[in-house]
Amino acid sequence: MRPRARDAGVWFGELPTGTKNMITDVPGVQVGHCTIIKGTGALKPGSGPIRTGVTAVLPHGENLYEMPVKGTYFDFNGCGGLQGALQVREFGVIDTPIMLTNTMSMGAVADALIRHMLRDNPSAGLESDTIIPIVSECDDSFLNDSRGLHVREEHVFAALDSAGTNVEEGAVGAGTGMMCHDYKGGIGTSSRVVATDAGRFTLGTIVLSNHGDWNDLTIDGVRVGSMLGAPPIKRREHGSIVMVVGTDAPVDSRQLHRIARRAVMGLAVTGSSSHNGSGDIVIAFSTANVHRRYREDGLVTDKLLLDKDLNDLFRASLDSTAESIINSLFKADTMEGRDGNVAVGLPIDRALEVLKDHGRLRGR
Amino acid sequence: MRPRARDAGVWFGELPTGTKNMITDVPGVQVGHCTIIKGTGALKPGSGPIRTGVTAVLPHGENLYEMPVKGTYFDFNGCGGLQGALQVREFGVIDTPIMLTNTMSMGAVADALIRHMLRDNPSAGLESDTIIPIVSECDDSFLNDSRGLHVREEHVFAALDSAGTNVEEGAVGAGTGMMCHDYKGGIGTSSRVVATDAGRFTLGTIVLSNHGDWNDLTIDGVRVGSMLGAPPIKRREHGSIVMVVGTDAPVDSRQLHRIARRAVMGLAVTGSSSHNGSGDIVIAFSTANVHRRYREDGLVTDKLLLDKDLNDLFRASLDSTAESIINSLFKADTMEGRDGNVAVGLPIDRALEVLKDHGRLRGR
Amino acid sequence: MRPRARDAGVWFGELPTGTKNMITDVPGVQVGHCTIIKGTGALKPGSGPIRTGVTAVLPHGENLYEMPVKGTYFDFNGCGGLQGALQVREFGVIDTPIMLTNTMSMGAVADALIRHMLRDNPSAGLESDTIIPIVSECDDSFLNDSRGLHVREEHVFAALDSAGTNVEEGAVGAGTGMMCHDYKGGIGTSSRVVATDAGRFTLGTIVLSNHGDWNDLTIDGVRVGSMLGAPPIKRREHGSIVMVVGTDAPVDSRQLHRIARRAVMGLAVTGSSSHNGSGDIVIAFSTANVHRRYREDGLVTDKLLLDKDLNDLFRASLDSTAESIINSLFKADTMEGRDGNVAVGLPIDRALEVLKDHGRLRGR
Amino acid sequence: MRPRARDAGVWFGELPTGTKNMITDVPGVQVGHCTIIKGTGALKPGSGPIRTGVTAVLPHGENLYEMPVKGTYFDFNGCGGLQGALQVREFGVIDTPIMLTNTMSMGAVADALIRHMLRDNPSAGLESDTIIPIVSECDDSFLNDSRGLHVREEHVFAALDSAGTNVEEGAVGAGTGMMCHDYKGGIGTSSRVVATDAGRFTLGTIVLSNHGDWNDLTIDGVRVGSMLGAPPIKRREHGSIVMVVGTDAPVDSRQLHRIARRAVMGLAVTGSSSHNGSGDIVIAFSTANVHRRYREDGLVTDKLLLDKDLNDLFRASLDSTAESIINSLFKADTMEGRDGNVAVGLPIDRALEVLKDHGRLRGR
Repeated sequence: MRPRARDAGVWFGELPTGTKNMITDVPGVQVGHCTIIKGTGALKPGSGPIRTGVTAVLPHGENLYEMPVKGTYFDFNGCGGLQGALQVREFGVIDTPIMLTNTMSMGAVADALIRHMLRDNPSAGLESDTIIPIVSECDDSFLNDSRGLHVREEHVFAALDSAGTNVEEGAVGAGTGMMCHDYKGGIGTSSRVVATDAGRFTLGTIVLSNHGDWNDLTIDGVRVGSMLGAPPIKRREHGSIVMVVGTDAPVDSRQLHRIARRAVMGLAVTGSSSHNGSGDIVIAFSTANVHRRYREDGLVTDKLLLDKDLNDLFRASLDSTAESIINSLFKADTMEGRDGNVAVGLPIDRALEVLKDHGRLRGR
Repeated sequence: MRPRARDAGVWFGELPTGTKNMITDVPGVQVGHCTIIKGTGALKPGSGPIRTGVTAVLPHGENLYEMPVKGTYFDFNGCGGLQGALQVREFGVIDTPIMLTNTMSMGAVADALIRHMLRDNPSAGLESDTIIPIVSECDDSFLNDSRGLHVREEHVFAALDSAGTNVEEGAVGAGTGMMCHDYKGGIGTSSRVVATDAGRFTLGTIVLSNHGDWNDLTIDGVRVGSMLGAPPIKRREHGSIVMVVGTDAPVDSRQLHRIARRAVMGLAVTGSSSHNGSGDIVIAFSTANVHRRYREDGLVTDKLLLDKDLNDLFRASLDSTAESIINSLFKADTMEGRDGNVAVGLPIDRALEVLKDHGRLRGR
Repeated sequence: MRPRARDAGVWFGELPTGTKNMITDVPGVQVGHCTIIKGTGALKPGSGPIRTGVTAVLPHGENLYEMPVKGTYFDFNGCGGLQGALQVREFGVIDTPIMLTNTMSMGAVADALIRHMLRDNPSAGLESDTIIPIVSECDDSFLNDSRGLHVREEHVFAALDSAGTNVEEGAVGAGTGMMCHDYKGGIGTSSRVVATDAGRFTLGTIVLSNHGDWNDLTIDGVRVGSMLGAPPIKRREHGSIVMVVGTDAPVDSRQLHRIARRAVMGLAVTGSSSHNGSGDIVIAFSTANVHRRYREDGLVTDKLLLDKDLNDLFRASLDSTAESIINSLFKADTMEGRDGNVAVGLPIDRALEVLKDHGRLRGR
Repeated sequence: MRPRARDAGVWFGELPTGTKNMITDVPGVQVGHCTIIKGTGALKPGSGPIRTGVTAVLPHGENLYEMPVKGTYFDFNGCGGLQGALQVREFGVIDTPIMLTNTMSMGAVADALIRHMLRDNPSAGLESDTIIPIVSECDDSFLNDSRGLHVREEHVFAALDSAGTNVEEGAVGAGTGMMCHDYKGGIGTSSRVVATDAGRFTLGTIVLSNHGDWNDLTIDGVRVGSMLGAPPIKRREHGSIVMVVGTDAPVDSRQLHRIARRAVMGLAVTGSSSHNGSGDIVIAFSTANVHRRYREDGLVTDKLLLDKDLNDLFRASLDSTAESIINSLFKADTMEGRDGNVAVGLPIDRALEVLKDHGRLRGR
């Protein structure tokens, strides 16, 4: 089995990780995947081969519609889709699970997520507000029959209903058909624990990686990609990356936006220059200061960190995002998709060798 | 038959209208509706009554994916949904039809629009980019069984395939179940012709109105709403408005954003203060300087208006939006929806009387 | 003496005003002017005639650097200057007085404000942060020898040191040389009191008006400007408007931004279409939830209104801004500036007559 | 004499540099400095010691007010000042020199720049628009008596009048008193040449570096800072960085914003996590498609790159910014300022040794 980056001796920064080194180290956060793999060989339009899926990130296990979390997004490169974006910015909260999938299945996923949420919220669309789902995407059409629109309600429900605290990485869920730096990519996660004057908090990240050129891949400062040489590539254009940042640190949407921006710095240190077609989107939430949707009256009380105490959260956002990206590469096995298109898993042994040559392998 | 505002003597500003006083006065622009009305009486969850629909705005009659138009959006109040927003802002173009529907049907409409577009774009998602549809919404759940999610692919296709230059107004298409200033609202359109140093151009607007309090409704400066007194209301909360602005004036996305902002001033002069829950979203496009998606090389040439020549387009955006809102009220008949909920059509005769008393009825 | 709008029977909306109907009804807010008028006749470059000044808006009477207020800005039309903008947005606070002046004197005012603040903050620029002043502007060069750069440190100090709760309006302070809808404009203020579930709060506005075309001037819905006919105009281009909104309602910078946007709706209902060259800038602050700049540790506690309770503050922002604009016209006398350029005071009697004819004069 | 990074064997990326590896490789661009150094020893408030200055970046040698260049800004971290920001964004152009100085001297520099520009523009503020200067800053108060406000008109004029194509780096101009990663920093510059389908273009950058922690300093992927160990530091808080990006590539303000964002990725790869107090501001301009301010009529023609051809410009922006930052460190000698505060010049020999040990020294 392919190791995670840290288990192989690849570090990012000096902050300690959470217990699992996953976004689910943030108390309450859950992640679920539904992986859809079917068929091989030549594209039979509408029938496959299918290499796609759905990933659900739940900021907490309660009813999000009733108990929204603070939230924001930052589109460093807006060449991508983020349904629900405007409302998140306007109110500074996130009130649905965050769904990830392939680009052209966003509509289907939004539709299914609403159906799932309507079950649990009998007054939504009657006495209370309608639902605007939060869905983002990358394009897996190099491996996947993306024109077949194979994501269906059952897959969305499966991702939501299987959500838990153990996060599978690599070619799973929405990451099933994705590529990263011309290798097989997909889902990666990591976390950091920071100590502030107001206590210890956890920040975790999960990425859907589908971006980058092999030549640019950088691990712990070493341009591993160029040293490995070109993998057999066929993709016409590089894709995007969605980065989800969650924390239990008490910060509001303005401060979350500041934290979200640093995730892009983590993207930068792994080698990306945010290609033209790379939708580089960060979605961030905090599980602190959650208030009920329908309060009757009065004021809400937010207890918030001082901005001067955000520095370690900035660093955590940067480092954890970088490590999540590398985890998405380390954990993703070679996959063959439609028309014999192959995404090769990062050759970990050779990559580690390069790092070792550059004195970057820790604990070895 | 209920008259349009202007035919009843209600004017907005001094600029001349286009031939039809519709957004379709902008050469190439087409609009199509699919109206879905079914059942009466008490809500039978999932079965109706249904009062909803879909509206499609096509910036031109060619393949939009291949021939994108300049575009932008402005969310004055982001309490609403606009799928595809990020990419529009990043590239400054619009490359799908602009779809309007009810809030919780956005996913279904996005999904169907993709299916429609895939038919015409056999390389999308293979050799060329995937498609990110542009869909916006208002909430019609006061009249409509919105939890029933009744908009289906066939309705989206019907709206797209029926698009033409004659725009029906009032309780049609996406406007079927909407309310405006506590009266029946929905679809309204208008247009203006402006003369610049660089020639004459047309700017048109179409709105999906679902916002406002009866007490605030203002027509040509007269607070008609408060003078008419309260209609029988039951809506818990006011809804939103989507405003689409199209023009053949040669402007880029930056300039379009400037024009789009003035549409909100048109919203203001009809009495709105943009309530908390009112997603007030403007989508704007220009059909000038259209370039093919896949050019092989070289530079694109944009011929653009000087900013100093935008003033009349600003005024046109403001006036045409205001008139579109009033048209959406004038043209919408009383409609009964679920659970006996009734949206009363604006009592035009009484409204005109009020305007006459205030010396505001022209040509009379 | 020229009356204020309300004293002459001109109302805006139904919300009650504060005691003085001034921004200083917000507890703690102070305003100071320094008016600089000197010379007449032909322009003697560098020597006058001078028709300019400085206005200082102080969110509270304490040390703002040490006790910043929540703040934001909204540039509906960014054709203008707002020094200090970026930092206000980043941290959501305002930590200096808000200074208004003529365009090309912004640098001088910023410099003088720093000198003034350094006196009271001996550690700024040593143990603590340097100061980034907040200064905005309109262009008074139609009346004023603006190339002479006549605003000096003494004027800035005078504006700051004379700040109090009685706000002079019209051709005073920064408004000395400004024009509004081709009449003499300048400073206007107003306020509203709103009742929320969490108590009563005051919102006040003060504008520096220098925008608009005579033909568009609209008072309480009546196009008074066009009915009065053209004043003798010579200005090449219309100017801008700066709108300052203050409140003691407990709202954070995100919510303040929502409130600030509605000020532009107040601008719209008085007839503006935000001309190309009109920098329409709103600066907003809340005096609630003020925290000391240098807290040692721990969390800050913000008690905030629910967004659903903002509706009356939105309306207050709109109505109070509209009334401030009209006050700036009502209170400004005819002024002759350089080269015989004359800004005529709005002929109030004739304007009131027009309003009366349209049934809009209250209490008469 | 201290070498530039590249001359010492430190590379960034694979794109070729321009002839001088300076922003002035972009045809027409000029840079001028005025360095103000006076006194030593204990702070005599108002009298020094003085360690500050002014830097002027001129996008071209013609009259910028009459011939504005395309422009934009991006505030990744808005904890800083950028006068003139709003107008740059609204119109997408830059029409004054770009001035850099210390934080609290921004007002004085703005004032002086206006005075300088009024000389050359006799109609500004009369028949034509007033001037809104573009000034940005970092805080040099660790070395400099910044409360003394020592930048005066003569210094601004000197920076403007001495502008040329040979750019001095290190502790000069606005960089005189700045620190970078706890070493002496200041001015650094670099450039790249890119080949596109539409021809070869140059992109250059110049930074004013005053940010970062010693521990984070990263050169070509190697965490040199932590390996060098802590320098003797006394600064209370880290400062900011201003990055100016210029190009002759034909891009508009929207595209420039995309390019500007990648400069922040260059900041990231040199180790910054954009500390709370670090105003990380990018200002970008293109010298292509320059149009006269006062055109009489008609349309302007912009010939623009396709977005798909921006990828190398993105990379150039990233790499050139990174190299500029390192140049600012390499070229800055140790400086003692007020109160015996010392900013140590980066120990280049030891830094190069570290890089050599990691196999990162090229040509050696």
